[in-house]
Amino acid sequence: MNRKVAIIGAGVIGAGWAARFLLNGWDVAVFDPQSGARQRVDDVLRNARRAMPALYDIALPDEGRLSFHDNLRDAIADCSWIQESAPERLDLKHRILSAVAQHAPADAIIASSTSGFRPSELLTGVASDTPVLVAHPFNPVYLLPLVELVAAPQCPGNLVERASTLISSIGMRPLVVRQEIDAHIADRLLEAVWRESLWLIKDGICTTTELDDAIRYGFGLRWAQMGLFETYRLAGGDAGMRHFLAQFGPALQWPWTRLTDVPEFSEELVDLIAGQSDEQSGHMSIDELEHLRDDNLVGIIRALRHTGTGAGSSVLDHEHTLAADRTPRRAASAGDSSALPVTVERVVPPTWTDYNGHMNEAWYLALGSQATDQLLALIGAGADYVESGKSYFTVESHVCHLRELHAGEHLSVTTQVVRAEGRKLQMLHTVRNASGQAAATVESLMLHVDLDTRRSSEPDDEVAAASRALMEQHAGHPLPDEAGRYVGAPRTARQRSH
Amino acid sequence: MNRKVAIIGAGVIGAGWAARFLLNGWDVAVFDPQSGARQRVDDVLRNARRAMPALYDIALPDEGRLSFHDNLRDAIADCSWIQESAPERLDLKHRILSAVAQHAPADAIIASSTSGFRPSELLTGVASDTPVLVAHPFNPVYLLPLVELVAAPQCPGNLVERASTLISSIGMRPLVVRQEIDAHIADRLLEAVWRESLWLIKDGICTTTELDDAIRYGFGLRWAQMGLFETYRLAGGDAGMRHFLAQFGPALQWPWTRLTDVPEFSEELVDLIAGQSDEQSGHMSIDELEHLRDDNLVGIIRALRHTGTGAGSSVLDHEHTLAADRTPRRAASAGDSSALPVTVERVVPPTWTDYNGHMNEAWYLALGSQATDQLLALIGAGADYVESGKSYFTVESHVCHLRELHAGEHLSVTTQVVRAEGRKLQMLHTVRNASGQAAATVESLMLHVDLDTRRSSEPDDEVAAASRALMEQHAGHPLPDEAGRYVGAPRTARQRSH
Repeated sequence: MNRKVAIIGAGVIGAGWAARFLLNGWDVAVFDPQSGARQRVDDVLRNARRAMPALYDIALPDEGRLSFHDNLRDAIADCSWIQESAPERLDLKHRILSAVAQHAPADAIIASSTSGFRPSELLTGVASDTPVLVAHPFNPVYLLPLVELVAAPQCPGNLVERASTLISSIGMRPLVVRQEIDAHIADRLLEAVWRESLWLIKDGICTTTELDDAIRYGFGLRWAQMGLFETYRLAGGDAGMRHFLAQFGPALQWPWTRLTDVPEFSEELVDLIAGQSDEQSGHMSIDELEHLRDDNLVGIIRALRHTGTGAGSSVLDHEHTLAADRTPRRAASAGDSSALPVTVERVVPPTWTDYNGHMNEAWYLALGSQATDQLLALIGAGADYVESGKSYFTVESHVCHLRELHAGEHLSVTTQVVRAEGRKLQMLHTVRNASGQAAATVESLMLHVDLDTRRSSEPDDEVAAASRALMEQHAGHPLPDEAGRYVGAPRTARQRSH
Repeated sequence: MNRKVAIIGAGVIGAGWAARFLLNGWDVAVFDPQSGARQRVDDVLRNARRAMPALYDIALPDEGRLSFHDNLRDAIADCSWIQESAPERLDLKHRILSAVAQHAPADAIIASSTSGFRPSELLTGVASDTPVLVAHPFNPVYLLPLVELVAAPQCPGNLVERASTLISSIGMRPLVVRQEIDAHIADRLLEAVWRESLWLIKDGICTTTELDDAIRYGFGLRWAQMGLFETYRLAGGDAGMRHFLAQFGPALQWPWTRLTDVPEFSEELVDLIAGQSDEQSGHMSIDELEHLRDDNLVGIIRALRHTGTGAGSSVLDHEHTLAADRTPRRAASAGDSSALPVTVERVVPPTWTDYNGHMNEAWYLALGSQATDQLLALIGAGADYVESGKSYFTVESHVCHLRELHAGEHLSVTTQVVRAEGRKLQMLHTVRNASGQAAATVESLMLHVDLDTRRSSEPDDEVAAASRALMEQHAGHPLPDEAGRYVGAPRTARQRSH
């Protein structure tokens, strides 16, 4: 499959798709006859480069090629995915989709970002066997994993399946909607909240700030991880969902909402909402708000990584797939078997910085810990070994800080096995910035441990042999001057010149 | 003010209130004539002790006293806050509130957890000058900060203000509702989503799992931090909220919801939902689900701490208030000026653990970093000093691991100034578990830095003098054997006996 996508319409959603594909190594061809498309893509791409790699503990693939085209036909040539994100006007979408259908490669999937139209409605404008479906993402597309996939009843059998596979491969979460309806699933919920919210503002019950606070200090925190039904299952306690329904079902009959009516969308209401919104958020530019949103999303999704929940599991699955495709790189040319393995390649997440504006010292040891895990995997002491009840624990570590690192910086770590002797395994990690300059060294002594007794024990023979072999391979490497230091030891001339 | 609260009705909400107050140092008196109240409070308290302290980077106050009472009058004696969380039946609430009003201390605030009734409705059963208001929290009360405060129009002037102050003092976020309506604010939004969700399930558009996924992989992640209006402001781009409204306002007229109707709450619908919920979550016990939820909430709220957003700002504000009330403790008796300062007291958050089931090595350096910050504050090089463009950067650190630490464990750190000489500041932190056993040492060398040039510079005279004074005070303390080690250095007899 050709990893090339066409982006038709580059508003905030189209540009978000472009960023998501590009940062996953796809070539991206953009067609948007409206002015400013290049600028919009650049803006979104800048945000995406800042935030998306920070979700992962490994580096993303090299970016694909980005191109802009003056006509649709050029843009969609050789593409295996064509994503339409034009304004929500059915006549316009029909025009675009019929032109796309005419010139698209035979096996290309044609997807629409529409939030409101059903796929059957899209198909009324094109040949009925056109491989069109709805792939509805959420802003920011480069961070939120959800994509609602909706097919028309007459859709060819494997189209949804092919689309799901592809959407998963760029780290997103396909949600196949069983039956097409207006607005799919998520936007129906959003629409319900939106209507109720407009009434609350119009009736003066609360301001936009207060309404947002009612969400983000309360149930919004629950919904980021569990959603509605699983949360309510918990409210039912050990008696479960049935108990919850028995207890709260009747509440449905109460006149608790204004849902039966829609407020008139008058100038006055627009003024009220826009004015309150200015008061709430007007002290920050959209750019600043976007950065804040993205840093928060990265932090939340990274928190969910830790338990493998929801959006965190999407990132873990994706990272696992990406890592499986790679063999550990060596620092020097592949032919040189004595070259040190590159045990970490990643960027610095914004959540790793502190009040001094740089990566906090603790994360150097986190890098060392990641590098150690990778090295342990190389000697056969990875996840399976831990599962079998054996592991290595760190006994002591020494970190030397040589250069500051900042959020978004690319870094790599090489690891040298210094000592592999019985229960002891000692290694020296060197952290380098994107220019290859040493930013820190982390020297660690590990002890082999029985996870049942939590006491030291002999490693398996294979593990011992593999670690000795690595030590011998690395023996020719000069150790950096930082090796073997005690805190406050006099610095050598070379160290002073750093 | 007497820091004693009465909890009337100890279901999941009442027990949550009990935990929130107790862990903030309040005495808690529970009255609940229904069987199993003690067990329910114990269960919730166990979860709260596990999760709530993990939000903070300092220890919470010592727990208050928990007592259970057979009659209401005993429970409310000497209380300054009385929280009613009985089942949602107006006649029952009237009976309770009128008994409470009769016996409550004169200056006590009486609050109801009701999610549906307006305060005026509550007041119809009691004297009109009774200090009753609605304080509606969200489950789990010990983690979610939101409390909707709603007063009746005839409410005494300063009641809401007093209630707000008190609610803030236990780390919660009061949201004063301007005008009483059925279900206040948040539950109106929840009710809207609930109705729409029931239709989606009933019509077979999606299952409960799919609906939850539509939330948690998408807009749920946005709502944990920003809510509805601020999120949409971003969708409007630089043109702001007015542009968003112009673009999406008309969508309100579309028939996108089934909101005008309520599905019949038949046995069939209950079976469908309960069955799907079992399939979705039945592989986990409620206990396991609660732990997962709490660990995720802790992770999400800790992520929001980093940017000071929403629920993260509640924790930061609360922590700041708690810390301001304390003077740094010393390890030995207060009279001994040479005793080492206790620079960290806290628990291990679940987010700090790794696949080996213990606190990951990187967090020892994070503890060292927190201890260093506290020590720097003691010598006058805290936040204000950084603001003035000067700071200390860590040059190198040595961590010795002596004992494992696990999620939820209480720990403390003492800090000894080893060297204070020109630009150099060297300290040795000892991390201890709750039994006082050394779990690790962190030795760090800091260099004074000019934050503009990012190069080393001389500290201010006051800072230099204060650090020298501390060094001299600490000079009598024997250094632990772990001081001055290089990685892999032979261990002394004392170290081997650890």
